[in-house]
Amino acid sequence: MSIIDVIEKKKEGNELSKEEIEFFINGYNNGEITDYQAAALIMAICIKGMTVDEISDLTMAMANSGEMLDLSDIAPNTVDKHSTGGIGDKITLILMPIVASIGIPIVKMSGRGLGITGGTVDKLQAIPGYKTDIDIDEVKNNVEDIGIALISQSSNLAPADKKMYALRDTIGCVDSVPLIASSIMSKKIASGAKNIILDVTCGKGAFMDTKTDAKNLSKVMKNIGKKAGRNVMCILTNMNEPVGYSVGNSLEVVEAVKALKGEMTEDVREIILTFGSYMLKMAGLGDDLEENEKRILKEIESGKAYKKFVELVGKQGGDISYVENLEKFEKAPFIVPVKSENSGYITDLSAELIGRVSVDLGAGRMKKEDGIDHRVGIIVCKKTGDKVSKDEIIAYVHANDSKKAEDAVLKVRNAYTILDKKVKKPSVILDVL
Amino acid sequence: MSIIDVIEKKKEGNELSKEEIEFFINGYNNGEITDYQAAALIMAICIKGMTVDEISDLTMAMANSGEMLDLSDIAPNTVDKHSTGGIGDKITLILMPIVASIGIPIVKMSGRGLGITGGTVDKLQAIPGYKTDIDIDEVKNNVEDIGIALISQSSNLAPADKKMYALRDTIGCVDSVPLIASSIMSKKIASGAKNIILDVTCGKGAFMDTKTDAKNLSKVMKNIGKKAGRNVMCILTNMNEPVGYSVGNSLEVVEAVKALKGEMTEDVREIILTFGSYMLKMAGLGDDLEENEKRILKEIESGKAYKKFVELVGKQGGDISYVENLEKFEKAPFIVPVKSENSGYITDLSAELIGRVSVDLGAGRMKKEDGIDHRVGIIVCKKTGDKVSKDEIIAYVHANDSKKAEDAVLKVRNAYTILDKKVKKPSVILDVL
Repeated sequence: MSIIDVIEKKKEGNELSKEEIEFFINGYNNGEITDYQAAALIMAICIKGMTVDEISDLTMAMANSGEMLDLSDIAPNTVDKHSTGGIGDKITLILMPIVASIGIPIVKMSGRGLGITGGTVDKLQAIPGYKTDIDIDEVKNNVEDIGIALISQSSNLAPADKKMYALRDTIGCVDSVPLIASSIMSKKIASGAKNIILDVTCGKGAFMDTKTDAKNLSKVMKNIGKKAGRNVMCILTNMNEPVGYSVGNSLEVVEAVKALKGEMTEDVREIILTFGSYMLKMAGLGDDLEENEKRILKEIESGKAYKKFVELVGKQGGDISYVENLEKFEKAPFIVPVKSENSGYITDLSAELIGRVSVDLGAGRMKKEDGIDHRVGIIVCKKTGDKVSKDEIIAYVHANDSKKAEDAVLKVRNAYTILDKKVKKPSVILDVL
Repeated sequence: MSIIDVIEKKKEGNELSKEEIEFFINGYNNGEITDYQAAALIMAICIKGMTVDEISDLTMAMANSGEMLDLSDIAPNTVDKHSTGGIGDKITLILMPIVASIGIPIVKMSGRGLGITGGTVDKLQAIPGYKTDIDIDEVKNNVEDIGIALISQSSNLAPADKKMYALRDTIGCVDSVPLIASSIMSKKIASGAKNIILDVTCGKGAFMDTKTDAKNLSKVMKNIGKKAGRNVMCILTNMNEPVGYSVGNSLEVVEAVKALKGEMTEDVREIILTFGSYMLKMAGLGDDLEENEKRILKEIESGKAYKKFVELVGKQGGDISYVENLEKFEKAPFIVPVKSENSGYITDLSAELIGRVSVDLGAGRMKKEDGIDHRVGIIVCKKTGDKVSKDEIIAYVHANDSKKAEDAVLKVRNAYTILDKKVKKPSVILDVL
């Protein structure tokens, strides 16, 4: 088999066989196929698309390119949760301790942030001492002891996907449904979960701009799951504005801890209750979603969910005194308010622009090698639908440099659209598939 | 400007601006844009195509990426000839001395062979001592002295095309009209010719499989010429079977020398007369094509064309005793006849298969770094339309190894289709555009 023949076949719009896809993935993974040959094939896939079978074969080839975790002995009916990427998305930090506390064993692997979307691993590392890269035996021990482990993705998990992902970023081939779906699903399948609940974010701050696109991506991922014998659910969420009120690593940990104690914004609450109740259902803990929601609220109110988080942090080497006393998190040296220039209603708060500002401030990275500052970020005090008066504080910028703070204030202000017309608070949960 | 934006624009099927095309070509040429980014853009161009303006801009950007020759002082009305690639194509060796002898100043740059198509530079180098890489001052001197220089393409002529061409070969993007047309025309424009006559080969041994495709390519190249202020003519020739009777470097030199003395096959004669008469017309030496043909024949009969070739070889350092005594060319150690297995008419002789055999024998190269053996090749004694009896010799294999000779005999036999039905000799000149 020759890679040139495979490339030409896809260029002509023909369906690749399982063998051809495996030949490509294995050859690329071991360096026999070059970056430029992979780039040409990826572009052809982007333009010509892939059939359901091809996407499934691509996913499995990438999943099989490295380690395949088997968690059946420690967590036979585990539920994994994954988001396609958001701004201010601290849902994992809140949701996973809750469901673990209820009794679903959780092994959740997360990534670092790249581009404008944040990553759970960066957030966890804002807690001094917290180790995200513990080995699989320790993970198993922790799950047996306390029922939860939140860790970083093993470097040998779907390595072919990692290579493809980095390449796609540099050749304008990010927005392809077959490639996004296979990238997400290969990692989930390799990490061993039987049940997978996917947060398919939708809007200007997400991969998928429109609900139609998000639905299409969901359908493709559910199909892959079916073929791989995994139970997949997709929940479409609104990603036009940031989730909750904070964007930035330690700022989001603080918000998450408060949420676990019951103090949460309406959108976070809706996401937690919806995802949580479906997770309980998937894990076989009850089919009545309303009952499940009540159980989740009880778990929060009783303080058990918060206690589970403290337990998790301690188990993974984190300093729990930070969680117990949130004032201990070091603050950014420059905390500057952003004031509204006019009065009216907020008709739009751009997640994309807020995400960009957070990267500029140092909370995220544009390149893998970039360092980040856990202290910096943005607090949005007002969101879409809120009424504001002139000169009212709508947000705070947390910066490590006065010049950066100044720039960020202007940009955050620009992220808001304030008009003289009343608008409804946007829905957070757009669809359940 | 960002290369990712340019790639995405073409991926969506939009027209690139002149600035965007120049940004790509310059960036790729100086190494700022990577091979994998170029590969992605080239694939998008292959699939989405290019407008007339884009092709023209791409051609000029590649032409301008290196040296731009100006021959106006030595050959103000020069005519350049180029073939899109053939098997056994020794036309340049015959045609150029003839027209130079008539009085058209000739500076012809040729390439090496790559893949199954041969290259004039390799053929010239079969003559001991012949130097193809002389500098531009020497070229000018030679043209002033004897009216002709046949040289290799300057390494700094359209270097961006060279890079693109090598990349296309490895990513399955060879057969794209915008890329083929701009590749050919960028080199012709950079080498300074005012008048360009293109031999657009057509058939199974050529880039263009069908006459429709060849016509389309011709139209595109004529358009580029028009925009660049060059006079371009295209002649479509049949490349289903090899040109003349020899394939291989010194074998073809021998055939060319004999042709210059008047001994030529019908197809070679037709090509020489057609191209020659149009070249005289383009150079302003006469509009009557029949008269021009007579003039060419007279130039051959008088021995002047042959004498011009001897002069050329001598001027460029070649040992003219080889041209004067063709027996001096070293013969391959194994010369094995290929016999027909049945009697009938030759209905097909595959140029593509013969080309492959010649590469296997060592007359051509699959990779740039491969060495070649000037002695080896194939002599085809019978061509399409010829009648043959069982066990009659239809070809000879010239090999440097007995095992290779054996393989080649089988493959050459397979290149022939011999059936019990009479067929006409195929036309050589398919169209003049």
